[in-house]
Amino acid sequence: MPCWVNGAPADGVSVADRGLAYGDGVFETVRVACDGPVLLPYHLQRLQEGLLRLNIAVDWAALEQEIRQYPGWRQPGVVKLIITRGSGGRGYGTVNVQGPSRVFSAHPAPQYPERYTQLGVRIYSCETRLSINPQLAGIKHLNRLEQVLARQEFQSDSCQDQYQEGLMLSQSGCVIEGVLSNLFLVQDGSLHTPDLSQCGVAGVMRRWLLEQMQECGIKVNVGPVTLQDIELADEWFFCNSVYGVWPVSHWENRTWTVGPLTAQVQQWVKDRWQF
Amino acid sequence: MPCWVNGAPADGVSVADRGLAYGDGVFETVRVACDGPVLLPYHLQRLQEGLLRLNIAVDWAALEQEIRQYPGWRQPGVVKLIITRGSGGRGYGTVNVQGPSRVFSAHPAPQYPERYTQLGVRIYSCETRLSINPQLAGIKHLNRLEQVLARQEFQSDSCQDQYQEGLMLSQSGCVIEGVLSNLFLVQDGSLHTPDLSQCGVAGVMRRWLLEQMQECGIKVNVGPVTLQDIELADEWFFCNSVYGVWPVSHWENRTWTVGPLTAQVQQWVKDRWQF
Repeated sequence: MPCWVNGAPADGVSVADRGLAYGDGVFETVRVACDGPVLLPYHLQRLQEGLLRLNIAVDWAALEQEIRQYPGWRQPGVVKLIITRGSGGRGYGTVNVQGPSRVFSAHPAPQYPERYTQLGVRIYSCETRLSINPQLAGIKHLNRLEQVLARQEFQSDSCQDQYQEGLMLSQSGCVIEGVLSNLFLVQDGSLHTPDLSQCGVAGVMRRWLLEQMQECGIKVNVGPVTLQDIELADEWFFCNSVYGVWPVSHWENRTWTVGPLTAQVQQWVKDRWQF
Repeated sequence: MPCWVNGAPADGVSVADRGLAYGDGVFETVRVACDGPVLLPYHLQRLQEGLLRLNIAVDWAALEQEIRQYPGWRQPGVVKLIITRGSGGRGYGTVNVQGPSRVFSAHPAPQYPERYTQLGVRIYSCETRLSINPQLAGIKHLNRLEQVLARQEFQSDSCQDQYQEGLMLSQSGCVIEGVLSNLFLVQDGSLHTPDLSQCGVAGVMRRWLLEQMQECGIKVNVGPVTLQDIELADEWFFCNSVYGVWPVSHWENRTWTVGPLTAQVQQWVKDRWQF
């Protein structure tokens, strides 16, 4: 499946692209199931919000049309969309930038063992922390060095990682998210997920789950979450739009089994997208 | 002057490059004067330090040789060096990345009016703040959205900007740097420059000036700087390796003339590099 750069098959971008120079853009990684893309409208909304937040001017109707025309949607896997401000400008300045640049690529879906979903995953406590910056919080921009450094802490050269996800705190010590996903926890019957207004990525699966919960009358507290909250959690899970929902089985010296809320949430995802 | 990508003339990088995907790399912008590059050893040291900090493995001797062979050094202007981790890996993971990628390009030097150096510049107070992250502080990595957003605050579509540089604070309100340069200030006869261990870019001109000051027995306090310190400053200036030293003439409702320490520092730069 060919990549598209600015609407045509290509495999490179200009060395002057501001995505390369400054991470000046946003991206989305969309799972494509047998019957089409998963949560595409939510991905597109976050993309649009990100472009707005970074003041990247786009003709949204034309961009959306180009995205929908990409042939990568026709086969199961993942499609990655990168939109940068484009090329040019003077230093950091954005006057006279030619853009935006659009880079679409299709890839096989990552193959995770079934047991991650069924029995849960082992969570690593990352030392790398997430910077606090409300201007950049929530959107999926291209400045992702913190995730790269955090991922390095628990990756291994072998095929099988000992840990499947890493827990990340903010610089001020609040629990925020995983390296590649968001988290929810249940404590004494009440459900919590970290507030992402100061840092973190507002995942589209997190958003969909929050909406499902609201529809079902399940109250969720979106607010500060501490390490102690995790220690006292009766169950907790991570979620993203590529793998769905992973219960946590191990973290530090504690173990958990798949709890009832986690099982219910997994059922929603299975009923809706068969994963 | 052609760009070099991985040692050969080219004008594009792979769409799979991690510099584009995550800003996973570092860069340097080196001024080339008539008699050769300015402060190149300092640029190379910061580049090497950045690669080390990001755990990007390179054959440093080979990389340095390739950098020195780039024909862009032969004419006055600026040379930009971008080193990314390379292409590949799985998501944020860095196992099996093919790299590093090396992108060298040559450009005309920016032409600033003489009066910026002689009479001083107008400084804008940026609302965009710098994230605190000691792991990334000091190095010149490719995650530069904060600078892009800050620069947008005071750029204008006309050729002549009303402000020449923007003052940036950390998320905790400390004075850190300009959008594209570092700063020094004199208050009651003592010289200060912000500590950059929590955020900011440790400029090579700042480093050279600190060394000159030490050689001349001029004590500099490298530590926290507040807005009140700026308000009370008798003189202050910005510096980088492309334009040299700009005295501040206007900030908020205050004005300054070029002070004696600033004039001395400008003389050092002029004596050494004629700019």
